[in-house]
Order: sequence, then C-alpha cells, then structure tokens
Amino acid sequence: MLISQVLAELYDCTPLIGDERKLIEAAKASARRVGATVVGEYAVSYVPHGFTVSVFLAESHIVLTTWPEFRLALVDVLLCNASMNPHLVLDTIKESLCPSGVAVVHEVPRKIHSEP
Amino acid sequence: MLISQVLAELYDCTPLIGDERKLIEAAKASARRVGATVVGEYAVSYVPHGFTVSVFLAESHIVLTTWPEFRLALVDVLLCNASMNPHLVLDTIKESLCPSGVAVVHEVPRKIHSEP
Repeated sequence: MLISQVLAELYDCTPLIGDERKLIEAAKASARRVGATVVGEYAVSYVPHGFTVSVFLAESHIVLTTWPEFRLALVDVLLCNASMNPHLVLDTIKESLCPSGVAVVHEVPRKIHSEP
Repeated sequence: MLISQVLAELYDCTPLIGDERKLIEAAKASARRVGATVVGEYAVSYVPHGFTVSVFLAESHIVLTTWPEFRLALVDVLLCNASMNPHLVLDTIKESLCPSGVAVVHEVPRKIHSEP
C-alpha cells in the first residue's frame, strides 16, 4: 500500500486555534468527513498558550499544533487507508480554523510494505 | 523559527515493534537523548496487531506506527526547538527497534512564523 502523509502550515488562523475543545472538534469532524473512525484523543497545552491536539483513528492519526501568537496551525494527517483522501481532511480543518489564510502543504509518500 | 519534521519508514524491525511498552520506552529514550521533555503518552492497538504510540513533549511529539506483519515502523518526529536534532531522535529509535534494517527518511521544513 502506498499512501501520502499530508503536513501543512495554516496561516492567518482564527482565535479558535487557542481553544482546545474547538481544535479537537475540528479534527474529529475532518475525520468523519472521509469516513475515518475516531478511537481516542489527547491534548497538551503549552505555557503561555498553544496546543498539541491528537485525534487517534482506526486509520492512524491527525495532529494539530498551534501557535496562537502567530495565528499559525500545523496540521499532520496520516490515514492508513488508500481510499481516504488526507487532503480532504486538511481542507476541512482549514475551513473550520483558518478559512481565509494561506496553506503551505507538504505531501510525503509512505510505503506500507515489508521492503523499501 | 525554521525547523524540520522528520518522517521515516524503518524496515526489518525486531519483534519489539509488536510490544506497546517497548515502543513507548524507545520513544521516551529518544526524546531524552536530545534533551526534550516528555509530558504525556498515548497508545492505540490495532486488531490483529500493530500500534500507534505517541509521546508528547514540551517541544511537540514523536509518533510511532507499526505493522509487525511487515516488520515495519513509521516514525514521525516534530521538535519545536531548533537546537534539538530530530535525526538523532530517529537514529535512537532505529537502534532500539530496527538496528539492522533500512531507513527511508523524509525531512519536511516547517516554518514557525506569522506568515509563509
């Protein structure tokens, strides 16, 4: 199986990126959008502000790391199901948290196999 | 701040990648190797086997996703401190879990700033 892990920097985000529950809700909603199954969540808050929020999936994970002082959110999406589109997850998160900002997107091929 | 997120596929791993505690220990030891501070952990087990294990850091996170049936481990390291070397984290994990295997490494630039 060859899949893509999608990473992105989202700029000009709204103040929602400083709200832990809103971050988790946005990640869960984006998972549902592609039919992924949420199996857990975890959040870390930084001092004075910012979060790392992870939503764990039957298909792997979504991680959001935020810097409210820069209006910046980092997105990390790994879906170990080649029929699910990680870009749709990213787009859904962007619509929720950073609708008017620029997204800088990185796509990394991940080969799920017993040899390179 | 410009940092690098390091992703890797590690092949020919030992059976330790099918042991949740060993995965968490390997991730925590790799964090200590670069002076990062562990602030939390979370693990998901898949049926019939395999794990996603996350270790959360004051500097962000390390995620390991494993397919014991392929002897494969995916590694994901984000350290939001430009003085810490994510490749050293990866090398430490590889030494613990997949010492004789090939590593396919991806380095992704992440710009922590208010604009692209």
